Amino acid sequence: MDSVEAHLADVLAAIRPLPARELSLAEAQGAVLERAVAARWPLPPFDNSAMDGYAVLASDVAGATEGSPVTLPVLGEIAAGDTGAHELRAGACFRIMTGAAMPAGADAVVQVELTDGGREQVTISAAVPAGASVRYRGGDARPGDLLLEAGSTLGPVQVGLLAAAGHGTVLARPRPRVTVLSAGNELVEPGQPLVPGQIWESNSVMLAAAARAAGCAATRHPVLRDDTGEVLAAIKEALAGADLLITSGGVSMGGEHDVVKAALSTLGTVTFRKVAMQPGMPQGFGTVGPDRTPIFTLPGNPVSAYVSFQLFVGPAIDALLGRPSAGLRTRRAVLTADVRSPAGRRSLLRGVLGPGAAQVAQVAPVSGQASHQLASLARANALIIVPEPVTAMAAGETVDVLELP
Amino acid sequence: MDSVEAHLADVLAAIRPLPARELSLAEAQGAVLERAVAARWPLPPFDNSAMDGYAVLASDVAGATEGSPVTLPVLGEIAAGDTGAHELRAGACFRIMTGAAMPAGADAVVQVELTDGGREQVTISAAVPAGASVRYRGGDARPGDLLLEAGSTLGPVQVGLLAAAGHGTVLARPRPRVTVLSAGNELVEPGQPLVPGQIWESNSVMLAAAARAAGCAATRHPVLRDDTGEVLAAIKEALAGADLLITSGGVSMGGEHDVVKAALSTLGTVTFRKVAMQPGMPQGFGTVGPDRTPIFTLPGNPVSAYVSFQLFVGPAIDALLGRPSAGLRTRRAVLTADVRSPAGRRSLLRGVLGPGAAQVAQVAPVSGQASHQLASLARANALIIVPEPVTAMAAGETVDVLELP
Repeated sequence: MDSVEAHLADVLAAIRPLPARELSLAEAQGAVLERAVAARWPLPPFDNSAMDGYAVLASDVAGATEGSPVTLPVLGEIAAGDTGAHELRAGACFRIMTGAAMPAGADAVVQVELTDGGREQVTISAAVPAGASVRYRGGDARPGDLLLEAGSTLGPVQVGLLAAAGHGTVLARPRPRVTVLSAGNELVEPGQPLVPGQIWESNSVMLAAAARAAGCAATRHPVLRDDTGEVLAAIKEALAGADLLITSGGVSMGGEHDVVKAALSTLGTVTFRKVAMQPGMPQGFGTVGPDRTPIFTLPGNPVSAYVSFQLFVGPAIDALLGRPSAGLRTRRAVLTADVRSPAGRRSLLRGVLGPGAAQVAQVAPVSGQASHQLASLARANALIIVPEPVTAMAAGETVDVLELP
Repeated sequence: MDSVEAHLADVLAAIRPLPARELSLAEAQGAVLERAVAARWPLPPFDNSAMDGYAVLASDVAGATEGSPVTLPVLGEIAAGDTGAHELRAGACFRIMTGAAMPAGADAVVQVELTDGGREQVTISAAVPAGASVRYRGGDARPGDLLLEAGSTLGPVQVGLLAAAGHGTVLARPRPRVTVLSAGNELVEPGQPLVPGQIWESNSVMLAAAARAAGCAATRHPVLRDDTGEVLAAIKEALAGADLLITSGGVSMGGEHDVVKAALSTLGTVTFRKVAMQPGMPQGFGTVGPDRTPIFTLPGNPVSAYVSFQLFVGPAIDALLGRPSAGLRTRRAVLTADVRSPAGRRSLLRGVLGPGAAQVAQVAPVSGQASHQLASLARANALIIVPEPVTAMAAGETVDVLELP
């Protein structure tokens, strides 16, 4: 059996980052920059007022106090969006709105609250220093300044910054497109009637949702029959629109029913191996099709499929985006109950991690640790790691825990 | 001025959770259960094999060892999805695949690795106890068992569990639909040419992305002119398809340019107030339209708008989903530089929180703390809280920090 680390290393070695392409800002959320983005224009693009008030020469109001206010004629009003050229002369002022361009010659804004709010002339009852309430051209970024580093994930603020800096589009690695397929004569679409011997398909529903939660655009293919031709056709079709494929089931050790294995053998190179973990021992990974699209063949047991997704597919998605994988958040926690683990395999037991600071958190293994027990997984928020050589741990011992997203 | 807590309390008091509706599983990701979901059928729905192997009576192989194997006739093969009725007689076995229904009369499965894999007859070289490699009907959940609690957010596993339990749809509070609007004559769509006095619109791009990141389905309206009629028409149109509206800008103290304020006054009740925080002092919130749709009028400065979103809109989204708001994750961290704050206002300074355990993390204020400095915000990952009465804190002091999502 191979180690978890060896399998993950082989997966990551086979994945090339997606090529960057020009994305609209609406598409760009969750994308990753291949190259840094520098400012092309000053941000803000012109000196403007930070307040509603009056644009003045600071020296004209230097003596203003409440007891001895200064009155200035108002030359006009400058609203935000006013694109005209305005020029201040000494001894006068402009009424000005937040965000409006400063008139030439003005060096400060007196906020309206420090005035009588006049329109023909205004009485100002406080001095302000030069520069008061002015946002200077380039005060946030000057042309050439680094706005976003290579490798940045474009979250809401980053997308907003690109907009503010005038980018209608951005060159970035797009969110990976993932297609999830499940094959099996026993599988019935959820909500459809069932006869004994059949089960409702859930893995593709769950894995597509997990891919979405991990930042991908994911679709699930309707249930496939155990028919090599049907599976082959579906994979070929999926290849046209996916950066990553995920299958679950159909790769058992049995042989003749392994239609996924059979279909893949004609499309590329997929390696099937046993990984020293529980759940999730039978793993398959490779590349298929003309673009050598990566494909995971995950185990058919739902808990195995989900744990495998978190351990292997999540990092692969990061690799497609060209960024280092943070992996799941790790914590230390105290076991509330005894646990067991097979020798030579790393157990990833489902647990409920309690609140509390890192040092004192407790983690309770859920009842129902078999790899088909999805209801138990749905109650868990963490995976308890029992290392490969260890076969038992007792309540009160401290363990490593992976927080589920 | 009102406190941050008072404003948040008023917001939350005005929001009613969205009514639950029947959602497809594809729509259900991120939705929240109004009522608990119990199992309607046993899960798994029938006894089935956990392994590829041979379904047997455990007593028939009780004596099997490698040195003294037991040979049994194979009555047939049961594949996953086989819906036929099979019955085992003592002294024989069925070849069986993972997930296939156990034949009547069998009580264990011998995995194929412990056999010679025969098809007419099979030689079994190890004993297995009764129940070995059998997943019992109802072993994950029995009818009536609680599957998901009321208030559960439907993540990938929960959606998968609903599928496995046969639900093609689920009654849940849907992800809120959010529309973001920005009005201003100075605003130009990102990527379009600009003349002096104009800026590229970024707030609606950023806030729609933030709403998406917070679990909503969000759209942004194209830039609106400073025209009450145009703004009014856009808000009315948005009301038809949104559970929450967000505007930014257009609500300054200036008066005649406050087209958003003017438009809202005809549509509902929106309260404008000063909140004792920086950035984000001018806040507006209320309800508009026939359904009393909640609306936030956020400040026009991008940093103010974003911080306001995190403090007020995020919890409001949780309230629409009918779940308690977790709020942003709070940490304690050590300041790396001196900071200042206006008396009487809670500062939320943008900072970079370093790695490290909770006790030793450091947080560095970014340069550029003005509320228009979006490039600085894009470098931050945390908000440093300076409490209302405090006007300065020194490097080395420990502060509360909110982690940005």
